[in-house]
Amino acid sequence: MGKINVATDTYLVGMGVSPGIAIGKVNLIDQRPLVDQSLINGSEVDAEISRFQQAIDQAREQLQKIKKTVSKQPHLREHLYILDTHLLILEDEMLVEGTKKEIRALVNVEGALTRVLEKLRALFDSIDDEYLRERRSDVDAVGDRLLRILMGVSERNIDKIGSSSIVVAHDLSPAETIQMDRSHVLGFITGKGGRTSHTAILARSLDIPAVVGLESITAMVVDGMTAIVDGFSGVVILKPSEKTLQEYLIHKQSYDCLEQDLEQYRDLPSITKDQVHIPLRGNLEISSDVIQIKKHAAEGIGLYRTEFLYLGRSAPPDEEEQFQSYCEILKQAEGDPVTIRTLDIGGDKFVPELNLDDEANPAMGLRAIRFSLHEEQLFKIQLRAILRASSCGRVRILFPMISGVAEIRACKKMLGDIQAQLDKEGISYDPDLAIGIMIETPSAVMIAPLLAKEVDFFSVGTNDLIQYFLAVDRGNEHVAYLYDPLHPAILRALKMTCDAANEAGIEVCICGEMAGEPLYALVLVGLGFHELSMNPACVPRVKRVLRQVSKQDGATLVKQLLLLSTSKEVSTIIEAEMRRRLPAIFAQPPIQ
Amino acid sequence: MGKINVATDTYLVGMGVSPGIAIGKVNLIDQRPLVDQSLINGSEVDAEISRFQQAIDQAREQLQKIKKTVSKQPHLREHLYILDTHLLILEDEMLVEGTKKEIRALVNVEGALTRVLEKLRALFDSIDDEYLRERRSDVDAVGDRLLRILMGVSERNIDKIGSSSIVVAHDLSPAETIQMDRSHVLGFITGKGGRTSHTAILARSLDIPAVVGLESITAMVVDGMTAIVDGFSGVVILKPSEKTLQEYLIHKQSYDCLEQDLEQYRDLPSITKDQVHIPLRGNLEISSDVIQIKKHAAEGIGLYRTEFLYLGRSAPPDEEEQFQSYCEILKQAEGDPVTIRTLDIGGDKFVPELNLDDEANPAMGLRAIRFSLHEEQLFKIQLRAILRASSCGRVRILFPMISGVAEIRACKKMLGDIQAQLDKEGISYDPDLAIGIMIETPSAVMIAPLLAKEVDFFSVGTNDLIQYFLAVDRGNEHVAYLYDPLHPAILRALKMTCDAANEAGIEVCICGEMAGEPLYALVLVGLGFHELSMNPACVPRVKRVLRQVSKQDGATLVKQLLLLSTSKEVSTIIEAEMRRRLPAIFAQPPIQ
Repeated sequence: MGKINVATDTYLVGMGVSPGIAIGKVNLIDQRPLVDQSLINGSEVDAEISRFQQAIDQAREQLQKIKKTVSKQPHLREHLYILDTHLLILEDEMLVEGTKKEIRALVNVEGALTRVLEKLRALFDSIDDEYLRERRSDVDAVGDRLLRILMGVSERNIDKIGSSSIVVAHDLSPAETIQMDRSHVLGFITGKGGRTSHTAILARSLDIPAVVGLESITAMVVDGMTAIVDGFSGVVILKPSEKTLQEYLIHKQSYDCLEQDLEQYRDLPSITKDQVHIPLRGNLEISSDVIQIKKHAAEGIGLYRTEFLYLGRSAPPDEEEQFQSYCEILKQAEGDPVTIRTLDIGGDKFVPELNLDDEANPAMGLRAIRFSLHEEQLFKIQLRAILRASSCGRVRILFPMISGVAEIRACKKMLGDIQAQLDKEGISYDPDLAIGIMIETPSAVMIAPLLAKEVDFFSVGTNDLIQYFLAVDRGNEHVAYLYDPLHPAILRALKMTCDAANEAGIEVCICGEMAGEPLYALVLVGLGFHELSMNPACVPRVKRVLRQVSKQDGATLVKQLLLLSTSKEVSTIIEAEMRRRLPAIFAQPPIQ
Repeated sequence: MGKINVATDTYLVGMGVSPGIAIGKVNLIDQRPLVDQSLINGSEVDAEISRFQQAIDQAREQLQKIKKTVSKQPHLREHLYILDTHLLILEDEMLVEGTKKEIRALVNVEGALTRVLEKLRALFDSIDDEYLRERRSDVDAVGDRLLRILMGVSERNIDKIGSSSIVVAHDLSPAETIQMDRSHVLGFITGKGGRTSHTAILARSLDIPAVVGLESITAMVVDGMTAIVDGFSGVVILKPSEKTLQEYLIHKQSYDCLEQDLEQYRDLPSITKDQVHIPLRGNLEISSDVIQIKKHAAEGIGLYRTEFLYLGRSAPPDEEEQFQSYCEILKQAEGDPVTIRTLDIGGDKFVPELNLDDEANPAMGLRAIRFSLHEEQLFKIQLRAILRASSCGRVRILFPMISGVAEIRACKKMLGDIQAQLDKEGISYDPDLAIGIMIETPSAVMIAPLLAKEVDFFSVGTNDLIQYFLAVDRGNEHVAYLYDPLHPAILRALKMTCDAANEAGIEVCICGEMAGEPLYALVLVGLGFHELSMNPACVPRVKRVLRQVSKQDGATLVKQLLLLSTSKEVSTIIEAEMRRRLPAIFAQPPIQ
């Protein structure tokens, strides 16, 4: 592997957002320029404002040039909207007028822009939606571009990446990711970002392993340093010892080998040994994910997040545009069911006068179904678009964050009203459209038997469910250690939910991250889930496990787990059981 | 009632923080002065800094003068610490150096101070503890004082309050509340504040009705306007019609009459008709609450919040000081049990380097037991002080926000280690000290049977429990409508908790606001709670109900309630049932 730096095996754990193992040499993309902030005299104000205006013009030209290049590459065309977003930010009043205002308060343009960017960042940080919050990176990217222009620093040279590189950066702007010579890139590591950041989405669609969220990574590496990126576990190892390197080379080989092994499962049905069909569906975060869903042969879409249709634009999409988007995905699903979830974000994006950025605990604020019921007009447009789309394929509708019977009754009432209206207008829709709710608040679990009487299916969102049950914000590094899918309280909550659904004879699906973990597949089937919906890349792995176990064994295992007191006991038993049953898959203990 | 303004019956609903009904004339305390912010030249910087320094000196003198006056009034002496807090804020580096820094950035002193105050306020607002967050009012009060001095505005003349006044202000500083001629004050209404604000605490200890948190109240009233303050329901009526006025006069009379009726319950035991003793204990938020606890004959203290010992000071109290504080309260409890809860706040107050003000959702962050287990040294000091105090009276120890078995085991391990150390040192403590946990996270409810094996008692904190179960921040006006103690999910959660405790043979107490509501008393006893702990002023009302119902009837009612689907159905049944059983108390429908 070439020269190895002083071997110290520096292990870091970030967030694995694109699976696979990469071993290569670090290519560090410069960090942000140090900004020269200073005060100015009143006489200098005009000159500074004009410098600012020139920087904006220059940034616009740069972006348009990149856009031109990108639009020639068909597979990247769908990412053009990112560049459009950047161009829009350049026109943003808060940014432009805010900076001018600061300059008039006698701060030089670099200082003024930095202050305004900080304010904008604080605004974004206060948003409680992972996807939206990460749109902050767009503002950062535009801000960096302007600062680089102002400071006379040239663009980061991403086209000069050496072969077999692990690209390391504090943050990668979408424009940068797009421009990179990807044949040279083996993996990505970034300091910022999350599962739905552009880097993550792009890395997944290019099948390049990526780990994000390693805060101080850029300070820990130098160009040419050897690094290992494990996009599954989120582990990054810097300066690996010869021993670790050999281990990982073997690990990578066996991974590649397993990948080939997995290929054979692609077209096999997802059926347990006792002949129970457990459909494995894909989660769709952004329209391009449909490619992954087809690649891994997921049985339709178990969770179509509609947020991306609304974001990065000044007005929400109208009914026709939504209808077209839904139909497009339904067409690609080729008859498989598609579960469309209504808008699941906070309202600050659309209704600034609500002042929702003041929410002290946005996770417990006006979001998801609460926001939709609050903004009826916006909601009705989405419901109408979904109902109309139900005539183009097998649609199921899913309402997020339901906490009581009154909420779902309100939703059903609105659906009924719109159906009556469509009947009157002679517009067709599926009259048997299945109606479901997310089970993610603890209250929904407690009253699951009551809710089961109201709907056709449940979909358990484990990510939020775990957060609320344990009162743990998993984005908070100080308490993330408490976030635990195997907590005895969570197992009991899942059991209560499945029992209520099975007793009422309705379907229950699971669509949080737990669903995509092969280690948990037997437990989930044993709990009584009928369907699992996951990141499409996980489908083959989970299917391989399911075909080798029985639902009956799962139920027996669950009975045993429900007697345990701590999550440590639970995970020990699950791991031992899965190793015993499927040694070929789970035998090797995870590396470090 | 004198001249009535144009009668419009303007109904407002704030937070009732001190019970009783007051009818009188508005005495509006000036709002804050409009601040003249402007930019300055470099040559003016020194003069502005010197103006700032003079304002600080003058504020210090004013505060010391008030302190002198107050210290001569024995019943107010315990509030002296508030003035000391203000004196400390005048020395605060963020305030003093921050303002100077802004002045050097060429802003005049009023503007500079305003900017710094905004930053400090934002910092406080991000704190997720009601008590701590409201300490922000201290910063506001000091900031206002400085701005008034700088603008040449004289102190608000609170000694000139007319007789029979309803005092209305955006916020009342503790110093102002203390200086007021209370014989003239019938009631308080403020725009800011919460249950633990100084205004609320003082109003309660003076038995003056108060409603706080009516954001724009100062803009809605003029001096001399008639106002009704209902400190129970939080209702304020401005410009009441003659009809409303008469209704409220009757309401007030019957209230006063009921108050006298309640007197007879003071020394009767809290026993149901079927001879079940349900101890009614008091919550202690601040040491002076012990007076109320004795006044209303609560059976000891069911929840001794220790937060106030730690706040408004630069370093946490040492072991000896805590020990003395606990013993003082135990002495006053005269043999009744005192449940001491360990520190229940976030850590930002003590460990700034944790940067907890960045927490996106502080309610799901590093607080309560998580903070204590994170800062072991601080926690051990408190545990040692509590253990030592257990030799001075009947102490029970209570751990907040437990979400799993591992946490309570860690607490017990620490307690055991300290006991061993005390044995070695020959220091006495109660070896049978009862150990309990708050049941407030949904996970604790789910695993209540597991937790019941680990402890001697449960205490259910309904305020947080409801928040987490429904994923609703009740401080958030947009979703407060969802915060609902009678939600079917909450009833089921309370039932699960009581069942687990009763099955394991341990005690289960309830100490949230639900406990003090007479309407819920029968339901709570029927659910299986053994003790209720509440605002001491509520004790007589709840006792009067309990002595006229039976636990058996409660259990029957609960069975009926658990069949219902919505909280509306639940509240309808409870109200009808209580009206039927106790018409004298619940017959009259609440006014508006």
